[in-house]
Amino acid sequence: MERITMAHGSGGKSGAELMARIFGKHFKNEILDKMEDAAVLEINGRIAFSTDTFVVTPTVFKGGDIGKLSVCGTVNDLLMMGAVPKYLTCGFVLEEGLDVELLDKIVASMAETAGKAGVKIVAGDTKVVEGHGGLFINTTGIGIIPENRDVSAANCKAGDKIILSGTLGDHHACILSARMNVENNIKSDCAVLAPICNALFDNGITVRTMRDVTRGGLGTIINEIARTSGVHIDLAEESIPVNDDVSGFCGIMGLDPLYMGNEGKMIIIVPGEQADRALSLVRSTEEGKNAAIIGTALDAEKASVTMTTRLGGSRVVDVLYGEGLPRIC
Amino acid sequence: MERITMAHGSGGKSGAELMARIFGKHFKNEILDKMEDAAVLEINGRIAFSTDTFVVTPTVFKGGDIGKLSVCGTVNDLLMMGAVPKYLTCGFVLEEGLDVELLDKIVASMAETAGKAGVKIVAGDTKVVEGHGGLFINTTGIGIIPENRDVSAANCKAGDKIILSGTLGDHHACILSARMNVENNIKSDCAVLAPICNALFDNGITVRTMRDVTRGGLGTIINEIARTSGVHIDLAEESIPVNDDVSGFCGIMGLDPLYMGNEGKMIIIVPGEQADRALSLVRSTEEGKNAAIIGTALDAEKASVTMTTRLGGSRVVDVLYGEGLPRIC
Repeated sequence: MERITMAHGSGGKSGAELMARIFGKHFKNEILDKMEDAAVLEINGRIAFSTDTFVVTPTVFKGGDIGKLSVCGTVNDLLMMGAVPKYLTCGFVLEEGLDVELLDKIVASMAETAGKAGVKIVAGDTKVVEGHGGLFINTTGIGIIPENRDVSAANCKAGDKIILSGTLGDHHACILSARMNVENNIKSDCAVLAPICNALFDNGITVRTMRDVTRGGLGTIINEIARTSGVHIDLAEESIPVNDDVSGFCGIMGLDPLYMGNEGKMIIIVPGEQADRALSLVRSTEEGKNAAIIGTALDAEKASVTMTTRLGGSRVVDVLYGEGLPRIC
Repeated sequence: MERITMAHGSGGKSGAELMARIFGKHFKNEILDKMEDAAVLEINGRIAFSTDTFVVTPTVFKGGDIGKLSVCGTVNDLLMMGAVPKYLTCGFVLEEGLDVELLDKIVASMAETAGKAGVKIVAGDTKVVEGHGGLFINTTGIGIIPENRDVSAANCKAGDKIILSGTLGDHHACILSARMNVENNIKSDCAVLAPICNALFDNGITVRTMRDVTRGGLGTIINEIARTSGVHIDLAEESIPVNDDVSGFCGIMGLDPLYMGNEGKMIIIVPGEQADRALSLVRSTEEGKNAAIIGTALDAEKASVTMTTRLGGSRVVDVLYGEGLPRIC
């Protein structure tokens, strides 16, 4: 097995050979191929600009790997601002001992996901550190925001409906199962959310707010939106979709899907009168086929989130506190 | 001593508190404060887009720290394309056990350097991993390229002169000294190179190529330019400035300053007839006060780099091969 050594990070010939052989091969495009200190791009208008570093272990899991995840994560962050993702940079930190074949597979997966998402990888950097054969990937992206789109966590208004694009907890439960060597059928939901966004914008839906439901889970993210928009959001527990396998796993583990990370789920907030049409548009996509309307925004003196439980009671939904599961993304 | 724990990376309340207390405090600006999934920026024209991850150990060294370095590095990469650096994202990977006070100091250093460089930090991300209390920082930047600037590693022509902005090897020798616990006065040259670039552009110099002399050293970088531009570059050994302390240290260690990394040095390639004026402009800046004309580009059937030695001989200058010193940046 060929392994990464410190020499690959020294800026010399070994590093250059590795770059050409793996990154150059998979990421080939006319901008990256120039090998300048920076990519030169022509841009006009409003852009979204976002960064994310991925440290997930294991690096390969059911439904994806750290490479696919690193592209989905940043592309989704751009989409959530109403942008059309265009360009990515990637920064690799490779731990000494990393299997070069595994790196090649991960980079191929990034290239494939970038291709599907319509983004070009235009600049990169690689460092090597001591460690145990793992890797970290930073991706930073630029997307173009078409005119007339105004999507923000501050835009949610009383009367708006909250749509969740699918089941909660799949990615988190998948990573936790892998780490604990539990055998089950739970797959990460890791996906590019562009089809859902396109279905909504192409059909003239007034999208107030979008947010992908990642680290911290729905509970944390919905609180951020309530606070930023200054509204009270009431969720209906029975409407929140959770996979049977995930639900069973969470029951045994004592986990709450409300605080679990996902990598291919989003919430969409739309005016109440457009909610049914928006829901059927989201459901028309593969990524959003299990979507549901899960709550309503209400006027409030103080921003807050509550949940009407299955038994008809009402409880406050707080943000995630404490540990959660680290290194899920 | 307060230390980073895995809970700081889980996406919940502890992470949010840390972000507000450290990143929010130092990086405060109207774009970052919105806390959206991505920063929204208005951009028109050609931009430079570049990424770099910093893994230097020790994280604090004479003349700087990983925070200052992480801003200088990416800002300099943008400058090298003729761009005016504008926006940065930063992605932190914190190792469990990291001293929170040290993190605060590093983040303050980033903010100070960003302020001096005129760039805003507009988006960020933090992850926590197991480890030994260290940290990695990715910065990705956008700069605007003013019209009529065409700076590229492909633009060097026969007759052009190569200017080096100062002494070689300072950063590399500083980091190596710190790692080996050698007492000396060698300081990192870590600096934002904007004053040099501004002096040249503001005075109408035709800048063909600029490149900061980082990992791989002058030997590697000058070879990349020769290859990309298809020229033969001949360097004059006696004209290459090296600090006396660095020169002494390299002699003892058996190191060649030609392959050592720097973090505040650049080469500038200009038409021969503008070389003397360009040199005096570079020398008029603090960052470029020790600049020198170190070589000439010549017509060539095959791209290559040679050096006329102190003794009058000529030798081929190849790229760095093998180890170098890892984790210098």
